[in-house]
Amino acid sequence: MSMQIGVGFLGAGTVGSALIRRLIYESDAIAAKTGLDLVVRGIAVRDLAKDRGIVIPPGLLTDRPRDVVDDPKVQIVIEVMGGLDPAGDLVMRALNSGKAVVTANKELMASRGRDLLAAAETAGVSLLFEAAVGGGIPIIRPLSESLAGERITSVLGIVNGTTNYILTRMVEEGIAYEEVLAEAQELGYAEADPTADVGGGDAASKAAILASLAFGTWVDGSQVTREGIEDLSTEDFVFARRLGYIPKLLAIAEYSEDSIAVRVHPTLVPLDHPLASVRGATNAIYVSGPSIGELLFTGPGAGGEPTATALLGDVIMSARERLAGTQVKSRIRFGTGRLRDVADFSTKWLIRTTVADRPGVLAQIAAVFGRHEVSIKSVWQDGRGDEASLLLVTHESPEGDLQLAVSELAGLEVVSYVDSVMRVYNDES
Amino acid sequence: MSMQIGVGFLGAGTVGSALIRRLIYESDAIAAKTGLDLVVRGIAVRDLAKDRGIVIPPGLLTDRPRDVVDDPKVQIVIEVMGGLDPAGDLVMRALNSGKAVVTANKELMASRGRDLLAAAETAGVSLLFEAAVGGGIPIIRPLSESLAGERITSVLGIVNGTTNYILTRMVEEGIAYEEVLAEAQELGYAEADPTADVGGGDAASKAAILASLAFGTWVDGSQVTREGIEDLSTEDFVFARRLGYIPKLLAIAEYSEDSIAVRVHPTLVPLDHPLASVRGATNAIYVSGPSIGELLFTGPGAGGEPTATALLGDVIMSARERLAGTQVKSRIRFGTGRLRDVADFSTKWLIRTTVADRPGVLAQIAAVFGRHEVSIKSVWQDGRGDEASLLLVTHESPEGDLQLAVSELAGLEVVSYVDSVMRVYNDES
Repeated sequence: MSMQIGVGFLGAGTVGSALIRRLIYESDAIAAKTGLDLVVRGIAVRDLAKDRGIVIPPGLLTDRPRDVVDDPKVQIVIEVMGGLDPAGDLVMRALNSGKAVVTANKELMASRGRDLLAAAETAGVSLLFEAAVGGGIPIIRPLSESLAGERITSVLGIVNGTTNYILTRMVEEGIAYEEVLAEAQELGYAEADPTADVGGGDAASKAAILASLAFGTWVDGSQVTREGIEDLSTEDFVFARRLGYIPKLLAIAEYSEDSIAVRVHPTLVPLDHPLASVRGATNAIYVSGPSIGELLFTGPGAGGEPTATALLGDVIMSARERLAGTQVKSRIRFGTGRLRDVADFSTKWLIRTTVADRPGVLAQIAAVFGRHEVSIKSVWQDGRGDEASLLLVTHESPEGDLQLAVSELAGLEVVSYVDSVMRVYNDES
Repeated sequence: MSMQIGVGFLGAGTVGSALIRRLIYESDAIAAKTGLDLVVRGIAVRDLAKDRGIVIPPGLLTDRPRDVVDDPKVQIVIEVMGGLDPAGDLVMRALNSGKAVVTANKELMASRGRDLLAAAETAGVSLLFEAAVGGGIPIIRPLSESLAGERITSVLGIVNGTTNYILTRMVEEGIAYEEVLAEAQELGYAEADPTADVGGGDAASKAAILASLAFGTWVDGSQVTREGIEDLSTEDFVFARRLGYIPKLLAIAEYSEDSIAVRVHPTLVPLDHPLASVRGATNAIYVSGPSIGELLFTGPGAGGEPTATALLGDVIMSARERLAGTQVKSRIRFGTGRLRDVADFSTKWLIRTTVADRPGVLAQIAAVFGRHEVSIKSVWQDGRGDEASLLLVTHESPEGDLQLAVSELAGLEVVSYVDSVMRVYNDES
């Protein structure tokens, strides 16, 4: 019916295979809905013999990714191999030769995105990456297009399904971190090397991309302050729950007073907050601004099929642009904003200490916080004697001040240990 | 810096004024973020003397909308006058003369959208309407672009802020419908003539637009089955709450078995469902499909500023397309799908009756439902004697069967009244 558009794959893992299956076996449905005839021209994989659970027509598979990128019949390159190398150079090569690129690679976009987007603009082609953040949730296009006229002040949410799954099970079933992780690995919810997920790196890449689009200032993934979930204990969660909180790994990007703060860390969320009920692999992202108030996007943050839907949406948009004869669309301009120093990040805190339950203890502890201008919101004591637990929740305080107060606290004779220091979701502002 | 793009307004009410203010007084910020120089060339209003709360530079206001449409310096027409006439003909005229149109007019899109979109395509210009549904929530673009590759099976949600505000107050404070409505009118949350909101017409227009985009089959607003909230009583809500439900006016568009069902009606939602906690003027829209599972979009469904943000996003996209030298983008193809008959709509039901509390009553009632193949899920009786309340919740049943059962029920000697029949959110499937 209409002109054929050739697509080529770099990679055919879970997400890639899901999209290949749809492009090959549901092409009629796609054509009926979009009027586009998308044809898979090549699929580059590392292992030609691997079973991918789908029947791939003969002649499509290759272990030379350059052949796919250089194939004159490929107009759109779909990069789902992941990682920085060789993905980055292949994407750059595709763009430079005038091909549109659709990618799910958050790590690549967070580290080389600015250069790649510039190369795409120079070449007059599209580089689309809806699938890089939030899996099947449309968030990149809403941020960069629908909200292009809004001065966004914050983007905040749960953007890593693996850690959310692990935290959910730790909280709900009281199982230790190591045990849940091992189980998640067995079920395929966590990678053999889980570092990128549990260390916060994956979420940091996504936070960098969201911040860059939201604030129009390029934020590199490496500039995102991060803390993972590896050191969290179920014991902390029990105490937090008594005070009405549940832990979530949050990505937080804020714009205020002409500076930008982007960070990823475990955060205690009030039980009645909508984020508290986001379980398992679901992602949820808040976008706030002076005019729109607060928007919330919720959906499947990972998984082959949802992510393939996000990729397919981008492929369809690229194909439509190509058929319209143009792919030049400067989606966002990146200015220069100042990144805030970690010491200036402000939040509320929950500090758990083990103290000797004696008269005057609280006065000593309160004095330490007072000296560092950290204001205490509530205090809660559990147990008596030499091993009493003392929980303190502060008002919003800069990280620098809090750290100074905590290290002084640890030196007090009446304080046996500072068991944990956790950030608390800031609902004061 | 870059080429100027002229925009003209048709209408300057709450939404229009909010956008005019931003385009005139925040043009530097918009230019910095987007690289676009958007210039307001004309504003057509009915009453030139009306105070709009903003200082409009001299020479922009006119009471002849055609002058704005025909102004050669206007490249993008922003239609925020509402209603079908003269808005429809003005939009058509603008499109035919090669101008892009951005509109917030759900009524117009639901009744003439198909023709207008066809005219836009013929003229090679854009007709964008993100602001027509969900106020500041990006939903049109995600549905028609990000999810272009998904076979969406349902779109469901709260899309009218006025009725949600009224229902929220009725439920939470037990105030009667008439009283809440009068108060809402005083506060400006409801129009002097509230029919479009409380009668479900506004939600029906939005449901038609969502269904058309989701399923690729054009659904006209007039084809949407609707029931408003005018006849709901707080007494019904008290009974519903005891059974764990809260009333919401839902717009529901479903695709199944090759037919489409689109409807708007009050629905009892389980208290623990996320929609139950959507209060006041907030909108919440679920989109479901086999690959993406379930997405939820939540945000401000009305109000000048949020809606202006949605319009501005569309204006920016139109301007970018114009600068790129093309506005031809077939966003969606409309095929022909079958609309399902109301009698075949299936849902669960809550029926409240007043009965004489005698042996054998339930057997008689159960027999009536059984004859019409409506299966009863639970029964609950309140009070004794001749004026006992009997509540029945059914399993999912077609509307036709249910109505037959209810009319037979009303004829039973032991049934004094059928007090109310309400649809219950179907969480079985």
